[in-house]
Amino acid sequence: MKPWENPTVVGKPLPRVDGNERAGGTARYTMDVRLPRMLHAAILRSPHANAIVKKVDTSEAEKMPGVRAVISMNDPEGKAPWAIHPGTRKPVSQIFDPHCRYQGEEIAAVAAETQQQAWDAVRAIRVEYEVLPHVVDPEEAIKPDAPKVWEEGNQPWPPAKYSRGDVDKGFAEADVVVEHTFRTICQIHTPTELHGSVARWRGNRLQVWDTTQGVFAIQRGLAEWFKLPLADVRVIGPYMGGGFGSKLELGKYTVIAAMLARRTKRPVKLFLTREESFLCVGNRPPHILTVKIGAKKDGTLTAIDYRGLGTFGAYPNWTTTDYQARDLYKCPNVRSEERQVYVNTGTARPFRAPGFPQCNWALEQTMDALAEKLGMDPVELRLRNVPTVSQAEGNKPYSTTGLAECLRRGAEEFGWKEARARAKSDGPVVRGVGVAAGLWGYAGGPPSTVIVKLYPDGSANINMGAADLGTGTKTVMTMIVAEELGVPVENISIEWADTGTTQYTEPSGGSKTVVSDGPPARDAAAEVRKQLFEMASEQLKVPASELALKDGKIIAGDRQVAMGEIRAFAEQQVIVGVGTRKPNPPDQVIHPFAVQFAEVEVNKRTGEMKVLRMLGAHDSGRAMNLLTYRNQVFGGMVMGIGFGATERRIMDASSGRVINANWHDYKLPTALDAPAEVACVPVDPKDESNNLGAKGLGEPATIPSASAVANAFYNATGVRITDAPMSTSNIVAALNAKGNRG
Amino acid sequence: MKPWENPTVVGKPLPRVDGNERAGGTARYTMDVRLPRMLHAAILRSPHANAIVKKVDTSEAEKMPGVRAVISMNDPEGKAPWAIHPGTRKPVSQIFDPHCRYQGEEIAAVAAETQQQAWDAVRAIRVEYEVLPHVVDPEEAIKPDAPKVWEEGNQPWPPAKYSRGDVDKGFAEADVVVEHTFRTICQIHTPTELHGSVARWRGNRLQVWDTTQGVFAIQRGLAEWFKLPLADVRVIGPYMGGGFGSKLELGKYTVIAAMLARRTKRPVKLFLTREESFLCVGNRPPHILTVKIGAKKDGTLTAIDYRGLGTFGAYPNWTTTDYQARDLYKCPNVRSEERQVYVNTGTARPFRAPGFPQCNWALEQTMDALAEKLGMDPVELRLRNVPTVSQAEGNKPYSTTGLAECLRRGAEEFGWKEARARAKSDGPVVRGVGVAAGLWGYAGGPPSTVIVKLYPDGSANINMGAADLGTGTKTVMTMIVAEELGVPVENISIEWADTGTTQYTEPSGGSKTVVSDGPPARDAAAEVRKQLFEMASEQLKVPASELALKDGKIIAGDRQVAMGEIRAFAEQQVIVGVGTRKPNPPDQVIHPFAVQFAEVEVNKRTGEMKVLRMLGAHDSGRAMNLLTYRNQVFGGMVMGIGFGATERRIMDASSGRVINANWHDYKLPTALDAPAEVACVPVDPKDESNNLGAKGLGEPATIPSASAVANAFYNATGVRITDAPMSTSNIVAALNAKGNRG
Repeated sequence: MKPWENPTVVGKPLPRVDGNERAGGTARYTMDVRLPRMLHAAILRSPHANAIVKKVDTSEAEKMPGVRAVISMNDPEGKAPWAIHPGTRKPVSQIFDPHCRYQGEEIAAVAAETQQQAWDAVRAIRVEYEVLPHVVDPEEAIKPDAPKVWEEGNQPWPPAKYSRGDVDKGFAEADVVVEHTFRTICQIHTPTELHGSVARWRGNRLQVWDTTQGVFAIQRGLAEWFKLPLADVRVIGPYMGGGFGSKLELGKYTVIAAMLARRTKRPVKLFLTREESFLCVGNRPPHILTVKIGAKKDGTLTAIDYRGLGTFGAYPNWTTTDYQARDLYKCPNVRSEERQVYVNTGTARPFRAPGFPQCNWALEQTMDALAEKLGMDPVELRLRNVPTVSQAEGNKPYSTTGLAECLRRGAEEFGWKEARARAKSDGPVVRGVGVAAGLWGYAGGPPSTVIVKLYPDGSANINMGAADLGTGTKTVMTMIVAEELGVPVENISIEWADTGTTQYTEPSGGSKTVVSDGPPARDAAAEVRKQLFEMASEQLKVPASELALKDGKIIAGDRQVAMGEIRAFAEQQVIVGVGTRKPNPPDQVIHPFAVQFAEVEVNKRTGEMKVLRMLGAHDSGRAMNLLTYRNQVFGGMVMGIGFGATERRIMDASSGRVINANWHDYKLPTALDAPAEVACVPVDPKDESNNLGAKGLGEPATIPSASAVANAFYNATGVRITDAPMSTSNIVAALNAKGNRG
Repeated sequence: MKPWENPTVVGKPLPRVDGNERAGGTARYTMDVRLPRMLHAAILRSPHANAIVKKVDTSEAEKMPGVRAVISMNDPEGKAPWAIHPGTRKPVSQIFDPHCRYQGEEIAAVAAETQQQAWDAVRAIRVEYEVLPHVVDPEEAIKPDAPKVWEEGNQPWPPAKYSRGDVDKGFAEADVVVEHTFRTICQIHTPTELHGSVARWRGNRLQVWDTTQGVFAIQRGLAEWFKLPLADVRVIGPYMGGGFGSKLELGKYTVIAAMLARRTKRPVKLFLTREESFLCVGNRPPHILTVKIGAKKDGTLTAIDYRGLGTFGAYPNWTTTDYQARDLYKCPNVRSEERQVYVNTGTARPFRAPGFPQCNWALEQTMDALAEKLGMDPVELRLRNVPTVSQAEGNKPYSTTGLAECLRRGAEEFGWKEARARAKSDGPVVRGVGVAAGLWGYAGGPPSTVIVKLYPDGSANINMGAADLGTGTKTVMTMIVAEELGVPVENISIEWADTGTTQYTEPSGGSKTVVSDGPPARDAAAEVRKQLFEMASEQLKVPASELALKDGKIIAGDRQVAMGEIRAFAEQQVIVGVGTRKPNPPDQVIHPFAVQFAEVEVNKRTGEMKVLRMLGAHDSGRAMNLLTYRNQVFGGMVMGIGFGATERRIMDASSGRVINANWHDYKLPTALDAPAEVACVPVDPKDESNNLGAKGLGEPATIPSASAVANAFYNATGVRITDAPMSTSNIVAALNAKGNRG
């Protein structure tokens, strides 16, 4: 099925279908789940960055008022295997591991009648530690004499390498070469909704309410963990308050909640505190990246060399960052080498475009420097190197690429040339503009099954396994079905994220929810339509091909027939359509592209930077809902400002502890940090790789944001901030170093 | 699809799949639903059998502590139309009607912070009544000068008449004619679970948890009531604690709960008390029935004349009782005439086999009397008149009839001849045996849609719209899918009765749940199997026709392949099958048949009757689960003993009030009233009218029970109790009348 040519619902700026309950307070999140006889749980965590737990004495805690269960490494279930090595696929730790490798690692858990009693009991647990030397800085950890996070050493595997062409020859052929080294901060997810679960057993059946981006991933994890059939594990994802990647995988807290529930034969609620969530539910790890780019005088790239040092904290985890270096620009000679190192900090988890903003920070600032050195407009330089095939994927053609159009239309709507011309770098308060491009490497696909049901009064129901993280998934899915069935949006209800009542889909992440779950929703609706038309055709004596649907009615020539008047439908009362996600075309590469522009004002005396305005020109294929599309773009920009300018997990090197593990000291961007003016230019190259024409937007919206701001900062000040964050103190230091305080 | 020939799961005596939670207290019934900020509601009801409400003063109630809303006929929504006339389809009353036509009719409702506050406020409502004369006895109500329940008179429509052949000629040809007049009591449903609802609005969407036998009926009723699309009304049926027909339709309490929730913008729980449930959620109304049967000397029936006077209380409702008189026995000449009359009592609702036990009580006692007069064994008399076609349905053939086999095998297993021979009628303590046959007139059909899902670990999920009233539906549905998919029963989970997540089916009632919802469940599972085999066939290079399923594995010759090893399945993660109930064969009549035997001991001095033992021989087609089958039969027998011997709503003629509206004074049979010995003989004539071979069991199990006991009483005492109940006092009176106290 080809994408719609002239949709009437899809593409409109429809407010969220669940906006009322989200804004009005009636939406029921996991935190709101209260079950009769439910216990509350809390976890004791290691205060040390690296320590051996010699002894855990829970005897006093067990006697505390209201305490119903305490588990620790003293218990058989506490010894169950936990973290899995992504290479060997073998477990490398246990639930309550006697070796705690970062501050916040789990030592024991308590279930009690009240949350306060649980915390009191946690404090009454006595632990004997053998504190070991620690290392929390990747550049320290890679040194030969660094404290060892793991006995076998701090480098889990050899560096990841990639190369094509002949990079040395490429640099030799270059007229201009630039090279910079960059540092990115460790960013913490901290979604509005904390991480937590409610677990309940009924006989051998486990039911869990979870703050998750993917109920089926949690279901599978719990089924494997507790050795249960999938059908006996029901995971429900109520309303979600954001995840950003930190809620993709099974949390240890979920397993602990289920263990405590099994032990006590009562439901157990276990929510992490905000402070805990800073320690142990993931982060975007810091990177040190060196980028060297060579180009001809006309701007044609001849070579890119990309070197990185990354970490994933104390436990092994997948991460490389170089994809954009390989694929964003046409370049015959590319080489990358990325090393990973263990440090004694909480383990990384995927974070909105994992790896991509880091690479972009380095790559796009280097491109900016290259443009300057070439004396070219940065937009022009990028336009000169727009690729038409994916060099990273065997030169397969892109399904579509709107990168050039994003650059051109974005620059036009932003008033790039004019703004650049009026950039002001003298005096204490300066102004400048910057641009950065980006791409995102995934575009959804199977598996996903969606069911659509139509009722005789012309209303309908969507049954999907996906969550709505707050991104507007439910709204877009509703629009897809409304479009296909000619049913008013307000007459469509939706069920989501419940392994007991909905069908498998992958977790919502990677900008692939709409592009994975939308196509089968459309297929399911089309199947409903087909069945309805067969029934109607027979009764109305009109060929199915001449029937249409509008406003919940069947249109047959001049006649408008209510659906319920179709007797075969009324007799059956429901038409069910099942849609299964088809694979993407195998001979294409599907990438969303992004170009963002920023204008900043810098007070060189105070070091204050204001992002005056930003514009995002995005090729994410069709804008399914113009309103939530804009929301995503603007939200991505603000998160990018956080990544580049305000946020940073601060490790105390001497104690190995996080010293800003709370919302007061960890500086999330607020409304005052957001650009006063934002604009969004959707570029739609009419992609046909799925039946929607959409390619995914969530991640690309944040990938180039920090880089665009950094380039604007450079444009204003002539000083390049290579090491994030662009905080007041860092800005002052950088300007001081150049003797440029205005 | 033909019924299975050699099932391995179906037919076995499997304990209920939800037995643990039901017995262990973790099952969540509607009464257990507690929502944040939920209000509690109570209803003020008329204490009078017939009165005009002149004025309702709620001013004091509104000021009571905790009260959040009071509604009455003073409010616009209180004037909304309610009861619908089944003939004219027009509303005949309003929610809070100024004319209360029976004790218990609704006058006002209160929502308050606590249940106690709601009741306190109800008591503070001041009502001015104009009390009118009333009539509660049908035989009084039909007299010309009786108080009028409705202005247009107490007979809502002309008598319902049926006739075939020439009845007068039939009686003229008869060698023997018997005639008796019978009275049956008014039986109250009183399921263990009370009637109630929890209603919550979110914007314009209404969600209701309801004690209902059919969530889709409630959904439709609420959608019509509140003028909402079906998709915006979600009705959830949690675990059910019995309904017996009293929970088939939308209750006024449900609408009131939703009204109060809309008014207060808070969730509202409204449960009736046990006492209220005796007044206003239905009953099996009393009947006065006269049966006259003529027969040849050899027992061949020549004519049946059936006359009835019934009631449905104060509001019109469908009810005729004569179906068995028309169709149970071969008889060329049958005439029936049934009159209905209004009385000032609560309205009838369908009650397990509505009309059938009443008719059976009269018909089967008359057959017993006929056998005696003919000098024939009552089993023989019935065997002589077994029909092969449905005379009530245009002489269409039965799909199958096991009536003769029920009579023969039942008599054999009961030891009928021996027991009859040893019947003892002298002395103060006498013994006797009785038999009665019956049939049930419905056998399910469309609409019903069931979805089955299979997971790669070989576990499965059933998604059905039906409730499980306590009858074992979930267990039987699980067995059907286990049979079809070769998956262990314990690896199948089930979702039910939720209009948001399951598909349309008719309410569970009429013995048609398994026969309506079971066939599409099997079809859905077969569809899953077909899809799986297509995937497996391609991978294993074995034709689909040579594949089988067993223990959650695919059997391909010698190979046993785990389902998850089928790559196409693993890539899709779920296989979905949709089953839609096909119509029954149009050229057949599908009836379950029943024959029950009873042996009683009567102490003629005290009037005590003990039912020593009973046996039910049932042709309900295939016994889907031998354990729940027996449960149904034994439960039906005990309910029949209640109908014939212990239960009775007692109306006080002078006040028009129910004087035993509670479980203390209304005598439900207890374990001590149940037969000490029960047996069950499933007769399976291998029906092929649906793909299960089942015909339905719930109602036939109770239809002939009271009659069999009454006939046994006669056999023991020589006295026929025509007017139920066979209570101690009635027995003493009847024996006294015959001068037979032993």
